[in-house]
Amino acid sequence: MTEDKGVEWRIKVEDGPWKTAVTCCSIWEFIANRYSKLCKFIKKIWMIGVNDPRKFIHCLKVGMALTIVTLFYYLKPLYNGVGGNAIWAVMTVVVALEYTAGATIYKSINRICGTIVAGLLAFSVHWVANKAGEQFEIVIVGAALFILASAATFSRFIPTVKARFDYGAMIFILTFSLVAVSGYRIDEVFPLAIQRISTVIIGTSLCIIISITICPVWAGLELYVLVIGNLDKLANSLQGCVDQYFEAQTANEESNKKLMGYKCVLNSKASEDSMANLARWEPAHGNFHFRHPWKQYLKIGATMRRCAACIDALVGCIHSENKKSDDMKKLMSTISIKVGAKSASVLSELAITIKNMTKSNKLEILVTEMNNAAEELHNILKSYPNINNKNEASPEAAKIEIPMMEIIQVGTVVSLIIEIVARVEDIVKGVEELSDLAKFKSTKGMSHKSKQNSTDIKISFNDQQKDEEATIKILQMTHNNQRT
Amino acid sequence: MTEDKGVEWRIKVEDGPWKTAVTCCSIWEFIANRYSKLCKFIKKIWMIGVNDPRKFIHCLKVGMALTIVTLFYYLKPLYNGVGGNAIWAVMTVVVALEYTAGATIYKSINRICGTIVAGLLAFSVHWVANKAGEQFEIVIVGAALFILASAATFSRFIPTVKARFDYGAMIFILTFSLVAVSGYRIDEVFPLAIQRISTVIIGTSLCIIISITICPVWAGLELYVLVIGNLDKLANSLQGCVDQYFEAQTANEESNKKLMGYKCVLNSKASEDSMANLARWEPAHGNFHFRHPWKQYLKIGATMRRCAACIDALVGCIHSENKKSDDMKKLMSTISIKVGAKSASVLSELAITIKNMTKSNKLEILVTEMNNAAEELHNILKSYPNINNKNEASPEAAKIEIPMMEIIQVGTVVSLIIEIVARVEDIVKGVEELSDLAKFKSTKGMSHKSKQNSTDIKISFNDQQKDEEATIKILQMTHNNQRT
Repeated sequence: MTEDKGVEWRIKVEDGPWKTAVTCCSIWEFIANRYSKLCKFIKKIWMIGVNDPRKFIHCLKVGMALTIVTLFYYLKPLYNGVGGNAIWAVMTVVVALEYTAGATIYKSINRICGTIVAGLLAFSVHWVANKAGEQFEIVIVGAALFILASAATFSRFIPTVKARFDYGAMIFILTFSLVAVSGYRIDEVFPLAIQRISTVIIGTSLCIIISITICPVWAGLELYVLVIGNLDKLANSLQGCVDQYFEAQTANEESNKKLMGYKCVLNSKASEDSMANLARWEPAHGNFHFRHPWKQYLKIGATMRRCAACIDALVGCIHSENKKSDDMKKLMSTISIKVGAKSASVLSELAITIKNMTKSNKLEILVTEMNNAAEELHNILKSYPNINNKNEASPEAAKIEIPMMEIIQVGTVVSLIIEIVARVEDIVKGVEELSDLAKFKSTKGMSHKSKQNSTDIKISFNDQQKDEEATIKILQMTHNNQRT
Repeated sequence: MTEDKGVEWRIKVEDGPWKTAVTCCSIWEFIANRYSKLCKFIKKIWMIGVNDPRKFIHCLKVGMALTIVTLFYYLKPLYNGVGGNAIWAVMTVVVALEYTAGATIYKSINRICGTIVAGLLAFSVHWVANKAGEQFEIVIVGAALFILASAATFSRFIPTVKARFDYGAMIFILTFSLVAVSGYRIDEVFPLAIQRISTVIIGTSLCIIISITICPVWAGLELYVLVIGNLDKLANSLQGCVDQYFEAQTANEESNKKLMGYKCVLNSKASEDSMANLARWEPAHGNFHFRHPWKQYLKIGATMRRCAACIDALVGCIHSENKKSDDMKKLMSTISIKVGAKSASVLSELAITIKNMTKSNKLEILVTEMNNAAEELHNILKSYPNINNKNEASPEAAKIEIPMMEIIQVGTVVSLIIEIVARVEDIVKGVEELSDLAKFKSTKGMSHKSKQNSTDIKISFNDQQKDEEATIKILQMTHNNQRT
């Protein structure tokens, strides 16, 4: 109905009825276009939450925490206890309740420490200023504020402070200015400082309790899942890449997506860093004790990125070559595919090792097999002219001259595969260090269980949605494992 | 003196005087050790500021802004004007005055918008709740708080909102809770909302004025300098790497450091992203107009990282090979070094192009030369067996069998160099797009000036300190250029 009316609405333009009709059409097209875009956008937003319901839960947690904290206002006895400063509790909840438990604890502890230190300092400054007499009061408070604010701001440039106490330094400046300045107006500065500290403690306690007890999102666990996922992505990329080149597998959309998994590995430095930084604030949870060696995951991440860089070069070399198959490629094919598969299975085994937090009894064998296969490949490469020279006896004497570009192309791919094997070994070392530092269990009859798990937590990295589903699946599995 | 006394202080232990002396010694050693560590730490911190004096200046700016804002408290007329809510101005200055102008503007605008929207909404909710009667008031305010806080928290998970309005969403929740909740206590909610908004505007204006006028640190300029520096690092790494392999240059500490410059390129994604994000909030400054295509720098950064990944693979292959020189390497040496030098000069020319914001008239020639050199290298590689086969006529008939591993090793290095050339071309495309988007000037008699600049801003990437000095030098040069 409205649509019909809309079509009749016309703009008078000089070019006559044709253009009018076109304008109407395009307006409707424009609206329809916008509407469909809006629908898509809303659906996309909705899928963010559907793919990871923990995000929905986090929103409800924030709403709940805020509603609880406003009780301090609504319930009169509580209000009289803490006074008008209950506003700080509200503010604390808004600012400190973060998505991960680690971030919440980091902000809470920083907020409490910053507030206490600044409160005490502001109190001392106020006391000194009071003793000095009214004419010096402003000068002393002002100078202290200037010096301390500048010093605290500078401390935020120091890398170690930035990593651990950046928020605390900001809260220090904030509290110090507020208490020092309010102290000039409000005669009783001590109760103000105490009230602010107590409301901040109430707010942060509420945040920490909510973030730890209700569907907690552990930064450590996220890091752990990210590293496991990246190992699997690397394995898929490596195998897919080698298989596609040696034509063991035809390229289709799905395999191409798998192949591109290494790009996620290359780009995950920032999230790894921030999560490792937050994870150290978290208490023991699940299989992770308090001082779990989170930094080791960063080292593993760095070795993975080196491996991914090499895969990137390999993909580049593969795409740049002209696509005629040759004898040498066929000759190298079987063993190269074997090396690719062996390295991929080493990477998968590393993922399983971390997943089960159990030292693998297969890993050593797999690494040896991978190295043997790489050695074999190396030897075939070395002896290639000899193999080729045998053809001299054959009637096709013209074939003696080796087609150099083909040798170089295949040789480059093979050299890169061998280099990748060396870098996979670095990852193995990193994971072994982790298994020592984190005291992974040794395998005793675990092989059955690990096998079962590895099939259960089989991750399919087809697209982002499935990827996120897989993450949640791992998380659920990990939680179940922790319970049993 | 104190030292003497300290030595005489003894702990009685069962093992007699020997152990006592040792304990004293080790305590002194411990203290001396700690003291020297502390000194080193303090020196390190001091050097952070000395290497980049803008950090010192930023601290003074924060101190100054806070001192100015406290005038609202100290000066009675102003105090009476804005009332006790002047506390929000202090808080705004502490929170919104960031190191870069972009971050300050981002936070200020987000804070103002978040506060206004939340203030108006809270006012409406309060009005509705008032009309509904006292028994529903708590329920309506509580429900509105829960729903809006949850929704605003969820919006922070949407990538586009996260990138641009993350802080605004937080301030929205904060202001809404404070005004809605205070509204229940303080009967006049409208003046409260207005006061909060006006103090926030005063605070943010002060922040923006200070961050833009006093030694401004532009996020855009930082990004620009980072990209230029990374191009130079890439050029140095590439040339150093090729030169070292083909023994045109002996490896020493300095050249090794230069060679490792590509690692900075690999790790600079996070800072590039955040700076590009902040740069879009900045007004026109220097040669950058308001809608300068900052996103294009991210694209250039991505192509640079692809190039750096390939250099990483090249470095890996070079280090893994056995170090005997061979005929093939000697044969390839001259032309490979030429390709390395040409690609490096293309990268340097790109850096100069961006530095002068002037389309280079040499770039096309350099790219052609690079491609020709690469083509020549390719041809030598192709014709290598023929060259080698000529030796058949020579008396050393044993040499006919080509040492395969050497061919493969040199071939791999050469293939990677050719792949790097292809990736350098991608960078060239990115920079050309930038020069179109940002409307770089064409060269008309600019070649002299550009030459002069390029020698002036010669950057030596020996170590971090010099690196930072160089950055500041570029910044100074850029500012000077802008003035003239």
